[in-house]
Amino acid sequence: MQRIVKLDDIKQFDLTTDVIVAGYGGAGGCSALEARRAGSEVLILERASGAGGSTMMSACEMYLGGNGGTKLQRDLGFEDSTENFYNYLMACFGDHADESRVRMFVDGAAEHFDWMEALGVRYKRGFFPGRDVVALTGDSLQFTGNEKSYPFSEIAAPVPRGHLPADAGHEGGLRVMAALTARVAEAGVKVQYDTRVKQLIQDESGRICGVVARSSGTDTYIRARQGVVLCTGGFIMNEAMTRRHIPHLDAIATRHGNPGDVGDGILLGVAAGGQTINMSEAFVGIAHYPPEQLTFGIFVNEQGQRFINEDIYLARLGHYATLQASDKIYMFIDNKHFERPAYMKTELVAVGETVAEVEREAGLPEGALQQTVAYYNKFAAEGSDPLFHKASEWLQPLETAPFALVSYRLSEIKPFVFTLGGLEVLPTGEVVNPDREVIPGLYAAGRTVAGIPRTSKGYASGMSVADVTFFGRVAGRQIARQPRSAN
Amino acid sequence: MQRIVKLDDIKQFDLTTDVIVAGYGGAGGCSALEARRAGSEVLILERASGAGGSTMMSACEMYLGGNGGTKLQRDLGFEDSTENFYNYLMACFGDHADESRVRMFVDGAAEHFDWMEALGVRYKRGFFPGRDVVALTGDSLQFTGNEKSYPFSEIAAPVPRGHLPADAGHEGGLRVMAALTARVAEAGVKVQYDTRVKQLIQDESGRICGVVARSSGTDTYIRARQGVVLCTGGFIMNEAMTRRHIPHLDAIATRHGNPGDVGDGILLGVAAGGQTINMSEAFVGIAHYPPEQLTFGIFVNEQGQRFINEDIYLARLGHYATLQASDKIYMFIDNKHFERPAYMKTELVAVGETVAEVEREAGLPEGALQQTVAYYNKFAAEGSDPLFHKASEWLQPLETAPFALVSYRLSEIKPFVFTLGGLEVLPTGEVVNPDREVIPGLYAAGRTVAGIPRTSKGYASGMSVADVTFFGRVAGRQIARQPRSAN
Repeated sequence: MQRIVKLDDIKQFDLTTDVIVAGYGGAGGCSALEARRAGSEVLILERASGAGGSTMMSACEMYLGGNGGTKLQRDLGFEDSTENFYNYLMACFGDHADESRVRMFVDGAAEHFDWMEALGVRYKRGFFPGRDVVALTGDSLQFTGNEKSYPFSEIAAPVPRGHLPADAGHEGGLRVMAALTARVAEAGVKVQYDTRVKQLIQDESGRICGVVARSSGTDTYIRARQGVVLCTGGFIMNEAMTRRHIPHLDAIATRHGNPGDVGDGILLGVAAGGQTINMSEAFVGIAHYPPEQLTFGIFVNEQGQRFINEDIYLARLGHYATLQASDKIYMFIDNKHFERPAYMKTELVAVGETVAEVEREAGLPEGALQQTVAYYNKFAAEGSDPLFHKASEWLQPLETAPFALVSYRLSEIKPFVFTLGGLEVLPTGEVVNPDREVIPGLYAAGRTVAGIPRTSKGYASGMSVADVTFFGRVAGRQIARQPRSAN
Repeated sequence: MQRIVKLDDIKQFDLTTDVIVAGYGGAGGCSALEARRAGSEVLILERASGAGGSTMMSACEMYLGGNGGTKLQRDLGFEDSTENFYNYLMACFGDHADESRVRMFVDGAAEHFDWMEALGVRYKRGFFPGRDVVALTGDSLQFTGNEKSYPFSEIAAPVPRGHLPADAGHEGGLRVMAALTARVAEAGVKVQYDTRVKQLIQDESGRICGVVARSSGTDTYIRARQGVVLCTGGFIMNEAMTRRHIPHLDAIATRHGNPGDVGDGILLGVAAGGQTINMSEAFVGIAHYPPEQLTFGIFVNEQGQRFINEDIYLARLGHYATLQASDKIYMFIDNKHFERPAYMKTELVAVGETVAEVEREAGLPEGALQQTVAYYNKFAAEGSDPLFHKASEWLQPLETAPFALVSYRLSEIKPFVFTLGGLEVLPTGEVVNPDREVIPGLYAAGRTVAGIPRTSKGYASGMSVADVTFFGRVAGRQIARQPRSAN
């Protein structure tokens, strides 16, 4: 498939605008709005029949902080310095982190919250202290990642950074997209649905200066005087791509995204000379809570060994679960703490009056689980976890019979997976080639790019939506500053 | 940097040939020779001042088998069916494996051995039964991977497949390259050293039809009637690329390769529309043997837990070592089995008369190592390893004081690393774009492509050299079958 067309081959344009935004999810909407507000004429082309993308499917929690704290954090008595926020994010992604992107984000994240409120998204001044994927109390601030767990708690002061639309629960995405689409419409951004960007048009100098858009079987040639922003999402719905880039997750994944997450923007960007990075990394979510009391349980692998502090965020569990020697992952728990997880279908593989009985019934190596539980219980009674440093609030000996072993076998529970790889961009959204040279006229944001979250290991709820909306805005402002080309 | 030049922009060619091979290591040499033998006029362009590449730096062990056994295997009494070989390789690379490539390889690997002998490489009919990275006895056949260890031993009958040039030890690469370069010269292949392929030339139809070669500050325009084969090695020496694609290994790696492994061919292929896959995978070698008696020791992580059967190949150890929660990896061993590893500089972190003393001195969690050793010893005494299934020949209780804990901390030992990602090609060597469409005139082989070995997890010594020489030959035969273009 040819994804680049030379300007010379275009007889005439059907339409001309300043900026074309491909994709109308959170990234595309924010990008379009900022470009329009900065004076550009903007056209959004969206493959689906309506706006939303994967942002709308999410709770639209945004992971924000820094600058002493966002207005919401400060109103609720939480302080969060920019350095504290920076240290946390850098610890989350380590060698994978893009330092300059993280820096721009932590500097601007508090302002991004103000922008969202000004957009018309309502945030309630209430802090949800519990451990849940999304607060269902209507409160707008909560912990959503590994802030309070080892080793992060030793690197940065734990601060809640999950900013959730008020009274929205899992439906925050609807609220944010309602506000965003309303402002986009008011601002005079033009939108065309059921229209896919099929090709990019490149002029003689190499600059991207328009697109070929496909709608109802017809091609339209659209000129973009300032350039094109690719915001078409990730590639979790493109099976040919996932088989090639995340083969280790392909078979066990519940694909999490909207049907348009087929990598369109990534492939267009690559055709224009862009390069992909981080393509084998993905979010892998195993929601072992709520209920939060399940955090008292312990996870073991096929060897009956623990491998993680269970008070971590669900994507960190997903990360380490996929690294074990086999996909047989279990939770061991006693009757005092047993419950069914709210968001996962799990099976009991063994129940018994003693740990030995459970171990035998589950076919675990003789003595291994008994040893693991005895060791855990001994130290839990003293409030410590010398192996993995689970926080003391989640440490209680597991000693109330009967005991259960619950299967979290990956091929059975099929964790939620979405991709974290894509085009390499500068923090400004400018797409770069393998030599890190900017491809003129081409910008990208959202899960089409490798963004702030780079591995499941350090992910927290709200990081992706915060990244895509924040850097969507940055790309929109950046493209609006470009001179309008004459051709 | 512009890596593609349009044919229209070339005023005139300085030189014309049928086939250009970029890079003169094992892949390039084999490719050139086969193309020449099939009747093509062939020119090799090599960046360095001599032939060899990373193949010459290696022991040039080749991982071969199937078809009932290679001549060497059969002469030494080993049988190896094609299916057995196939099952083994597929188990090694699992979800990452390229089934069609593996299939072509197992079908042709026995013939490849004959071809190597006919080339003039001498193989000694001697089997080395020991456990070493490379047999130093002069013998030519040995086990080099995970064949005899769990879980592989249960999936395929263990057969030695490491084919090593006779009496060469670590210098097999010199022997193979000596034979290969002699045959290449005899066959009339032209070779130009100190010449780098800087750009590919593409005609109007998209076909690659030549190169711009850079030598002594001068560009030469060379036409290739049948196309170009990229065999310039991997990218382990390109720090900008490793930082981007293997960030998790970048800081701990001893970069293993020749200075020309800077990704030239990968970047050229991408510029031509090719796509990269498997870019974050790399060989990670921790040579915990020889001496083989070190296999009696046990590896533990920072939690004092075992994480692997120690009778595995060194790259599988490397793989799992990098997946532990911290980079602090140790070998625990008793006085009866203690030795220094031959190929690694390691430090003793603790020595003691009891396991408890060692544990305390090393600062491991209280009781954790004691528990691990007690469990291991109990079952080792019975000849079993219920947790990781180390083969019984390597199981002996570790009970002879004093005991030692040896540090294999990754940031200190700095394991050997080379890359396993690159261009996606069909088994024929044809480079494909993200839609898996062939880019006409463009071929690749060697570590420029994602080949048979796709993860360190299933790697065995000899897999890379076997892959690069075998598929180098395939690519050479494939390109020689192409019609000669007129332009």
